[in-house]
Amino acid sequence: MPYFDSASAAPLHPVARQALQAALDEGWADPARLYREGRRARLLLDAAREAAAEAVGCRPDELVFTPSGTAAVHSGVAGALAGRRRTGRHLVVSAVEHSSVLHSAAAHGAAGGTVTEVPVDRGGRVAPDAYAAALREGTALACLQSANHEVGTEQPVAEVAGACREAGVPLLVDAAQSLAWGPVAGDWSLLAASAHKWGGPAGVGLLVVRKGVRFAPQGPADERESGRSAGFENIPGIVAAAASLRAVRAEAAGEGARLRELVERIRTRVPELVPDVEVAGDPVRRLPHLVTFSCLYVDGEALLHELDRAGFSVSSGSSCTSSTLTPSHVLRAMGVLSEGNVRVSLPPGTAEADVDRFLEVLPGVVAGIRERFGAPASGPAAVGDRSLVVDALGRRCPVPVIELAKVFGDVPVGGTVTVLSDDEAARLDIPAWCGMRGQEYVGERPAERGTAYTVRRTS
Amino acid sequence: MPYFDSASAAPLHPVARQALQAALDEGWADPARLYREGRRARLLLDAAREAAAEAVGCRPDELVFTPSGTAAVHSGVAGALAGRRRTGRHLVVSAVEHSSVLHSAAAHGAAGGTVTEVPVDRGGRVAPDAYAAALREGTALACLQSANHEVGTEQPVAEVAGACREAGVPLLVDAAQSLAWGPVAGDWSLLAASAHKWGGPAGVGLLVVRKGVRFAPQGPADERESGRSAGFENIPGIVAAAASLRAVRAEAAGEGARLRELVERIRTRVPELVPDVEVAGDPVRRLPHLVTFSCLYVDGEALLHELDRAGFSVSSGSSCTSSTLTPSHVLRAMGVLSEGNVRVSLPPGTAEADVDRFLEVLPGVVAGIRERFGAPASGPAAVGDRSLVVDALGRRCPVPVIELAKVFGDVPVGGTVTVLSDDEAARLDIPAWCGMRGQEYVGERPAERGTAYTVRRTS
Repeated sequence: MPYFDSASAAPLHPVARQALQAALDEGWADPARLYREGRRARLLLDAAREAAAEAVGCRPDELVFTPSGTAAVHSGVAGALAGRRRTGRHLVVSAVEHSSVLHSAAAHGAAGGTVTEVPVDRGGRVAPDAYAAALREGTALACLQSANHEVGTEQPVAEVAGACREAGVPLLVDAAQSLAWGPVAGDWSLLAASAHKWGGPAGVGLLVVRKGVRFAPQGPADERESGRSAGFENIPGIVAAAASLRAVRAEAAGEGARLRELVERIRTRVPELVPDVEVAGDPVRRLPHLVTFSCLYVDGEALLHELDRAGFSVSSGSSCTSSTLTPSHVLRAMGVLSEGNVRVSLPPGTAEADVDRFLEVLPGVVAGIRERFGAPASGPAAVGDRSLVVDALGRRCPVPVIELAKVFGDVPVGGTVTVLSDDEAARLDIPAWCGMRGQEYVGERPAERGTAYTVRRTS
Repeated sequence: MPYFDSASAAPLHPVARQALQAALDEGWADPARLYREGRRARLLLDAAREAAAEAVGCRPDELVFTPSGTAAVHSGVAGALAGRRRTGRHLVVSAVEHSSVLHSAAAHGAAGGTVTEVPVDRGGRVAPDAYAAALREGTALACLQSANHEVGTEQPVAEVAGACREAGVPLLVDAAQSLAWGPVAGDWSLLAASAHKWGGPAGVGLLVVRKGVRFAPQGPADERESGRSAGFENIPGIVAAAASLRAVRAEAAGEGARLRELVERIRTRVPELVPDVEVAGDPVRRLPHLVTFSCLYVDGEALLHELDRAGFSVSSGSSCTSSTLTPSHVLRAMGVLSEGNVRVSLPPGTAEADVDRFLEVLPGVVAGIRERFGAPASGPAAVGDRSLVVDALGRRCPVPVIELAKVFGDVPVGGTVTVLSDDEAARLDIPAWCGMRGQEYVGERPAERGTAYTVRRTS
């Protein structure tokens, strides 16, 4: 049963399992104690720290283990902001950071700080110049992911780190998605990552703070992990995390090249096999194992459900699959289609045959859902009034776009269709539909209920 | 090799190991995902929550898992204080709480809140009346441990919870040391605990917030664990924690009675076998498995080292074994001797023969250290000047007390000895020596360097 969601959590690497077993026997005691069980635990912790630091490319005393990648980000952002509070309270982030970064930024804003979100292009990438322009007097910290968790786009970390260095601003890199594949290049100041993304166990993250970076840990004091991560150390987990990071790194070059091919196959074949699909993310500067695409006229939740029934575990940034009923902030920032969104992230060892079977199954699954939703066939047909209004109020993604497409052929070239919708996804998906169809998106305006989105037929 | 420090961390329970193994296979995926691996993980998480809630005696939706007991306390205190901020900013704690509670209180104080520390008696127990008297208009939260981690004294939680309920103040119970032995009685509002104290793995704590208790989680938002504990859930650890809690509870009655006997043997025999020893903590209202005693004229670090060489792993609250060079705040709050302090906490399954061997070994170990330090023989000898001054500046515990005892016989009854010392432990240990010897402690005053402690000979 192929599991294609390693960007959420990778299955435990065999090396992690072995290391965990051994460390359960040797590493359960308190490493702060002086007796033999404590000394053994301390030795394991020190060795894990050295291995992890080597993989990251930092000094062991710059690295602490945290209970999760989220905790590493929360602690890293809060500590760096507090450490530079006298410089100012301005924080710069990209618009496509992981929620742990954006929620940290929101907390900073709620506490009186200011936040600048640097936009991304349609590929999901920040422009180094635009990022550099956001740095200013009073900027305490900048955050940039090494690669995006939803679309796989690699960010220009080294260039942004250079600009930050020049401006005297520390850069925190969220390396959660990329650390398995190699160290993060460039002169960054802080780094956060999460073991369960690279095949380590849940319950372990890491936070690196380079020597010389001002850092003031927040929250109640705790002497463990240099005062930067409170609570009794999860040494078996830490040992397994470090061992598996070393193991995946040893396999990274070969496995990366192999998965890059498989992802390339998905990127190429899906638009050939399935009509009305948009593949998102930078096609070249990307993670090897991750690809995202969206299917017009498809309900994301139904798509995930049908793929699960067919044996494929994938995730989605569609609004209808989230508890908030809003599409993924990443797809929104990129301005790409969110409906029928699928993220495929291949764990190491993914069989080529499973990818091929996915490509076999997908077209039928998408076609079945479209049929169920009554999605329109491609291309315009008859020509009627010069302007139509479609009421899709109370209907959720993908219905508003389906209703638009159904009547679009009824207006002549030059005519308009206006869709009334109160679904958040429409704001993203109607312009995206225009882009895919080569039609003109006129704009949105508030309506008596919901929002009116207007499209002009140009062909 | 007997390990007698289960109050720091208990060895992994066999049931925890089995559950962990199984959950590594079944519980590694993201429980928020809808595909089969995610659903399996969610089922395991839900089942673990139900088992833990049953053991605690709460509803499953009142309990969240945290990355450690420390994290549970930090989040619980911060969330409860914030939830009642409009009521006031006064926090009540006992003087002998775990450092995670006291550090939370210190952080609250640093942020402008006020804190009252309720003192304890020489047995380490708060008086319910004194605790109730500390509650006032504007008290947002009260904290009380179920049992003390250093001396094993059980606190009157049910009575204090009643007083809190009457005053309309929520009570947070730190149940880290007692949850293995049974649920916490009384009408408490919040509860925190730590799995590695009951034979579960490191990396798992739990926080219970009763329905109706005002609670506002602090820090950046995160939707996991009802918004009360950020970061990807460590489900294998959580499953192992819940399974082992259930297992230790099934064994608690029998094993508790057995260990209580063994501890009683230590409490009785140590003062018979070793001269100048003070056993600390309530002799009756205590944890079954834990006992603490202190040996006059002995360096705690040397004692731990020698016991470790003899094969016994114990811990100590002596100043010389801590990084801060101050004696344990618990022993200080109780006003008992801190030098030569040893805490013995027996894990389940401790063999009677190991306890007997400990009792065999201890007298020789203590005598050897005393000889090395040149400790005085018991009782006064010749009589000289009416008042003597002993300069112990720059000398660390146990030397100041040894120097006092050496010259004490040289002053007549009614005369005084003044010890000059800059060691923090002297403040506790010189009055404690007076108590043990039946001599009068006159008091302390600042000296040109350090502090002058004066003792009057009364017999």
